[in-house]
Amino acid sequence: MKRLTLLLALLALIIASAVAGERRVGTSPWGVDDEIGRLNLITPESQAAILSRLAGGKNYDLSVEYFIGMPSWQAAGDPHYRMWMTHTPHGTVIDDPMNVGKPMNEHVSYTGAAISMYTHMGTHIDALNHFGLDGKIWNGFSAAEHAGDRGWQVAGAENIPPIIARGILIDVAAAEGVNMLPDGYRVTRDDLKKALKKQKTELREGDVVLIRTGRMQLYADADAYMANPPGLGLEAARFLVEESGAMIVGADNLSLEAFPSELETDYVPVHTYLLAEQGTPIIELVYLEELARDQVFEFAFIGGSLKLRGADAAPIRPIAIPLRN
Amino acid sequence: MKRLTLLLALLALIIASAVAGERRVGTSPWGVDDEIGRLNLITPESQAAILSRLAGGKNYDLSVEYFIGMPSWQAAGDPHYRMWMTHTPHGTVIDDPMNVGKPMNEHVSYTGAAISMYTHMGTHIDALNHFGLDGKIWNGFSAAEHAGDRGWQVAGAENIPPIIARGILIDVAAAEGVNMLPDGYRVTRDDLKKALKKQKTELREGDVVLIRTGRMQLYADADAYMANPPGLGLEAARFLVEESGAMIVGADNLSLEAFPSELETDYVPVHTYLLAEQGTPIIELVYLEELARDQVFEFAFIGGSLKLRGADAAPIRPIAIPLRN
Amino acid sequence: MKRLTLLLALLALIIASAVAGERRVGTSPWGVDDEIGRLNLITPESQAAILSRLAGGKNYDLSVEYFIGMPSWQAAGDPHYRMWMTHTPHGTVIDDPMNVGKPMNEHVSYTGAAISMYTHMGTHIDALNHFGLDGKIWNGFSAAEHAGDRGWQVAGAENIPPIIARGILIDVAAAEGVNMLPDGYRVTRDDLKKALKKQKTELREGDVVLIRTGRMQLYADADAYMANPPGLGLEAARFLVEESGAMIVGADNLSLEAFPSELETDYVPVHTYLLAEQGTPIIELVYLEELARDQVFEFAFIGGSLKLRGADAAPIRPIAIPLRN
Amino acid sequence: MKRLTLLLALLALIIASAVAGERRVGTSPWGVDDEIGRLNLITPESQAAILSRLAGGKNYDLSVEYFIGMPSWQAAGDPHYRMWMTHTPHGTVIDDPMNVGKPMNEHVSYTGAAISMYTHMGTHIDALNHFGLDGKIWNGFSAAEHAGDRGWQVAGAENIPPIIARGILIDVAAAEGVNMLPDGYRVTRDDLKKALKKQKTELREGDVVLIRTGRMQLYADADAYMANPPGLGLEAARFLVEESGAMIVGADNLSLEAFPSELETDYVPVHTYLLAEQGTPIIELVYLEELARDQVFEFAFIGGSLKLRGADAAPIRPIAIPLRN
Repeated sequence: MKRLTLLLALLALIIASAVAGERRVGTSPWGVDDEIGRLNLITPESQAAILSRLAGGKNYDLSVEYFIGMPSWQAAGDPHYRMWMTHTPHGTVIDDPMNVGKPMNEHVSYTGAAISMYTHMGTHIDALNHFGLDGKIWNGFSAAEHAGDRGWQVAGAENIPPIIARGILIDVAAAEGVNMLPDGYRVTRDDLKKALKKQKTELREGDVVLIRTGRMQLYADADAYMANPPGLGLEAARFLVEESGAMIVGADNLSLEAFPSELETDYVPVHTYLLAEQGTPIIELVYLEELARDQVFEFAFIGGSLKLRGADAAPIRPIAIPLRN
Repeated sequence: MKRLTLLLALLALIIASAVAGERRVGTSPWGVDDEIGRLNLITPESQAAILSRLAGGKNYDLSVEYFIGMPSWQAAGDPHYRMWMTHTPHGTVIDDPMNVGKPMNEHVSYTGAAISMYTHMGTHIDALNHFGLDGKIWNGFSAAEHAGDRGWQVAGAENIPPIIARGILIDVAAAEGVNMLPDGYRVTRDDLKKALKKQKTELREGDVVLIRTGRMQLYADADAYMANPPGLGLEAARFLVEESGAMIVGADNLSLEAFPSELETDYVPVHTYLLAEQGTPIIELVYLEELARDQVFEFAFIGGSLKLRGADAAPIRPIAIPLRN
Repeated sequence: MKRLTLLLALLALIIASAVAGERRVGTSPWGVDDEIGRLNLITPESQAAILSRLAGGKNYDLSVEYFIGMPSWQAAGDPHYRMWMTHTPHGTVIDDPMNVGKPMNEHVSYTGAAISMYTHMGTHIDALNHFGLDGKIWNGFSAAEHAGDRGWQVAGAENIPPIIARGILIDVAAAEGVNMLPDGYRVTRDDLKKALKKQKTELREGDVVLIRTGRMQLYADADAYMANPPGLGLEAARFLVEESGAMIVGADNLSLEAFPSELETDYVPVHTYLLAEQGTPIIELVYLEELARDQVFEFAFIGGSLKLRGADAAPIRPIAIPLRN
Repeated sequence: MKRLTLLLALLALIIASAVAGERRVGTSPWGVDDEIGRLNLITPESQAAILSRLAGGKNYDLSVEYFIGMPSWQAAGDPHYRMWMTHTPHGTVIDDPMNVGKPMNEHVSYTGAAISMYTHMGTHIDALNHFGLDGKIWNGFSAAEHAGDRGWQVAGAENIPPIIARGILIDVAAAEGVNMLPDGYRVTRDDLKKALKKQKTELREGDVVLIRTGRMQLYADADAYMANPPGLGLEAARFLVEESGAMIVGADNLSLEAFPSELETDYVPVHTYLLAEQGTPIIELVYLEELARDQVFEFAFIGGSLKLRGADAAPIRPIAIPLRN
């Protein structure tokens, strides 16, 4: 019995190694200089097609607020969101930082604030340099040659263009008949297909696909929001990109994928699959509650992320505009 | 002679005092709870009107990059933009912050970065709490009651809605026949009228009006960009809001207005006029070079600023989409 | 029965109010300009007296390490300790921040790091402006007149002189016969007297008195260290200052005092008592384990805190040097 | 003529290469695990020797203040000193971060501040990992094996012991008969010998040697302080360590050494010589004006730097106590 267990464990290790061995960063079909992967699917024509179908003046705000105490990725000890005052109406009267004297400071009431944050906080998009495999990222750029103290010299967030594309909400929670998927639930390929069928939505190449787990309802309570969230499984991710042509994959949870990992050799296999193998940016912490409430499954997704040079992610505040048929 | 000088000085003081005395924060026509001022001009109808006129798939990126050494408001000693790595493909192998062991860290190449910044950096929008008069901001909210250590509890950037509006470029530099307005040049009401006439553009209520001084061409050289920029004068600002109905006023320079101030009692009179008296948000550091090159004077302005709770400004990456007639 | 409970509750409220009413910031016997309170007890003579008794070359390091994940005061959402690399031997080769070229960057291996922190982290001393009563601090300085956006213009940490004084360890844990005082244990006046008697130590005016609860043994585990620590009670603090003449009071725990507060009107009564009423600086997170192990109860306390202008606290790395009799 | 110039250039290159080729990190005589180099010279005996000679109760504060706008090393774009308020007596009444209610916040006046800084600011000591050669630091530790995202796992500032040693002021400015050495002046071996002779001071093994250039008089004006300071030359550094036995070398300027570098292959040769070749920590921005005024050339140097784990430098506030003969 013990021997059998040992044999099985070894077998698992061999398979895992084989799987790991197979995995490598993707080579871009858009050329050796490509730094944005599937975002190349955005063209004047693709944008014209979606913009020609806008239905009226309503829009949906897909982003969350930034505030002290907000949820963030804390597993690896990264900075929380901080916001502080560098100038206040009262403080400037005391400090006089502009050298204008007390009367003018009492008349002109100046308020200024500063912020600091890990780039993977709030509604944000991951650049393709966020996760790689074996020291390389999408399209073979290596950390040894391109990663400095101030970010990567390739594939940084400043390269992400404004995004105007067809957006699709896949409301998995609704399709499962629940308000929120259970803790740690791993969304499968079948779950996605079932939800799409129920919604009568079909995916097309170039879509921004946003998965709703319902977890966003806990956003105001950071601990609850962050604890063991439901998320995407690896086969589900493959379905979205390789079978369905998604350009961007996003969700309403903290880190897109479910944990613990499905692979023994990779603690974030959905991230490395999407970013490093497939050149597919990820959007996290998307606010989908109102789209879901109104059952808006197809829409124009319009948003521009901050052009943080060299960074592996950037905040974005996208909007969704419903489409005419 | 000396007596005359003295008399003139006294007269100037009296006038200045009178002007200062007159100046007070505006009361919102949108009600006692209003925190966003003229952004109330955005309605489903106003948005539908502009979205129905989009011309094809081209868009213009109106924002600048964030990088170490970028221009920023330094007169009052505020934080520069900082970006740093919290995780690198090499460093995680040494530190193992996820407790996954060396082999997995060598396979999964993790990059993470953090940023810090004054909120008035890069392309950004000022919230109405940024400048007030006599301890109050737009609509009479007082610092004594509403300004805490974590920002204002009213009129913060989180209240700024996604902006879909008619955008207008006023290319003052082009109208003056120069590539860039001279250092310290103060744009007047007549300059704006002349440029609008030359462009054959007319302003409408609810416009996002963006003034081009040409200064953005120096953005890569922070010292040059920041030194004594051309900017808007007070009468020009009055023309835009009170005569022309602008909803937002922006420009391609650091701080919108020209210095030194036109008023003895206020070091930033255009800011206090727009924000505190008129409830008109300001957008600074807008990238207008490509719009100017293509002579796109009218467009859809679409953008969402980060929802930084309580903050007096937030980064935004808007786009411009040309319109059909 | 219910009536009795109500009466008792009212009585408690009245007493609490009375106590609160009585409490006010202290007026310095060292003059209207005094910003350092009992630190005025340091004189050339007091220092000469202690320095003349140094016993040999052994010293004890009384400070803790700063590291990512270290304990800190988190109840009010303050910044954690952060440390990050701005230059690394590899990164400079990529970024070339000094503009010296790749060969020189490969030869000269540059490492640079930056930090950020709340000032009340690690072994630190509180300045007298840290806590006040009714808008004023020690010696009547008011926030309205003296507290700006960059700290207080009076009583800031830059005023704290180098400290050379008699140091006393009161090992309350040892006196109680335990390794560590229980969670939430409030050290009383009697506890201190008992420990002093057991140690055969007597207090003198001008002492730096350091209370050992034993909690420091949990320092490496931040959650354990921070959770409901034992601490000083109000009467014990009164005993140290008013009866015994202590110049500084410190301890090996996070916040000196025990929680919840003994007063209904003040959530940190020991802090306000020491800082605001008595002008007595507090030192927290002092490492006392080795002094305790060697039963060194009396020593020269020598240390200089960072001169952070306007700040309400500053890190310090003091040493203890045993004394001859 | 041109050919001669070319030949000379080639010759210079060959010599430079040879010099560069010769330079390598030192191997510690204190063993393969040694991380502190010459600080091993501190022993109980060395400390007892110096402590036995303390002369009375006067001490000199050798550190500078930290404030917004203070001088710092800016050549490579590193963070300035920042200090900001996270809690103020007024702000807590608005924000109530402790959830104690308005009345208690009005009664208990809470002030809290945070800071951020490059570690090489203010009076500070460099750890031996600050500069290396060819990817290695003192004692052969390599960046490839030991440098992570959170600093070095060896030779970090947390290893620096409290320093009690003989301190020596070499007042080069006074010896030259000037108030301040001229801009860019490079202190030579002869300058040091001349000053020592004039002072009648002799160096001994284990000394903390502090060079006065007089530049500290400009500290309040950051631009003036930082611009082209006088500093130490390479032969002068060799004299201090190899001929005279210095344990630590410090100065009152920004970066100890004079620029531009004396070596074509190394932009900071005095740093790499001291730290990487000789295992000799550096102290910068030391305040020596009062020692100089009182002509205190020999003293006990007592100070403990902050134990910043993994960091390449740490702030220190040392004191000098005059000695008896």
